[in-house]
Amino acid sequence: MKLLTERIARDGQALDRDILLVDSFLNHQVDMQLMRQIGDAFAAHFRALGVTRVLTIESSGIAPAGMTALALDVPLVVMKKRTSRITAGTVYQTNVRSFTKNTEYALTVSQKFLFPGERVLFIDDFLAMGEAALGAARLIEEAGSVLCGIGIVIEKTFQPGRKKLEDAGYDVFSLARIRQMDTGRIEFLA
Amino acid sequence: MKLLTERIARDGQALDRDILLVDSFLNHQVDMQLMRQIGDAFAAHFRALGVTRVLTIESSGIAPAGMTALALDVPLVVMKKRTSRITAGTVYQTNVRSFTKNTEYALTVSQKFLFPGERVLFIDDFLAMGEAALGAARLIEEAGSVLCGIGIVIEKTFQPGRKKLEDAGYDVFSLARIRQMDTGRIEFLA
Repeated sequence: MKLLTERIARDGQALDRDILLVDSFLNHQVDMQLMRQIGDAFAAHFRALGVTRVLTIESSGIAPAGMTALALDVPLVVMKKRTSRITAGTVYQTNVRSFTKNTEYALTVSQKFLFPGERVLFIDDFLAMGEAALGAARLIEEAGSVLCGIGIVIEKTFQPGRKKLEDAGYDVFSLARIRQMDTGRIEFLA
Repeated sequence: MKLLTERIARDGQALDRDILLVDSFLNHQVDMQLMRQIGDAFAAHFRALGVTRVLTIESSGIAPAGMTALALDVPLVVMKKRTSRITAGTVYQTNVRSFTKNTEYALTVSQKFLFPGERVLFIDDFLAMGEAALGAARLIEEAGSVLCGIGIVIEKTFQPGRKKLEDAGYDVFSLARIRQMDTGRIEFLA
């Protein structure tokens, strides 16, 4: 997606080889016109798959996933990051490690909003190690839903997320693919 | 907003006198078509005030505030709930107590995204005790911005939030106003 790549090149800040700051348009200050275009791009790519709900993770995924759900006219479901496990049997939960932030959380979704027969599109802001998407995939499978696609705003192709997801059989579509980066320098995959 | 009131009456669940569950359309599963209509309603009400950015709090505020920012064609800024204070001088922070959840957090926004001369519209999902909105107002004032309006999706009019905000001089506009509720019963203010 040319518009996104240009925006990352202009306003993104590579702090080191791993951390890309996009807080001026994606996850702290948010450009909703860009989010609308991102949602339209995901919807165009995944529309034929018969998606019945869009799933994402709070809170950076909400804007791009919400615009995708709006474009596809299906519900958005926002998974929560809990610091501790809930023992009541009304949710699906799985532990997810964030390598970028060096934290772990319990990815959580109510059983009311993920259930058999649903065709789920998972949308997230970043793909790096793939842990969040794999966690989402575990919950979707546990619920008896089908994960029919994974849409990523920014993929770090130098990390193994895509390979892990494709090895598990999932279709990954990224709008911007970063080949490598370092302080002040970002290279995209052509 | 009739559509919203009808939706709350149909799908909202009053668990007791204080807690209203709207997780099937507002903050866990999200109806983005409804969010668009909410955004349009806020934009119509506040458009004349010359709003230059919409401010909200992660993560339930993002969908309605994002659709408002989209309708007004201004940036969205998402304040973070931090569990501890950041000591670096690059953010504005204030402690906010959530009475509903009985928690406290450090409401945080980067100084890059809130600065003098901005006309800020604060949008949130609920108004009850008004603590979150008052916290946002403190940060906006500290940044030298102007808080020109407060848009609330669901107001609990039996709690003192509106009075506190109006006493502080702010304009509060709510799309649904609940007069009282109790287990299985919700009464709206006409």
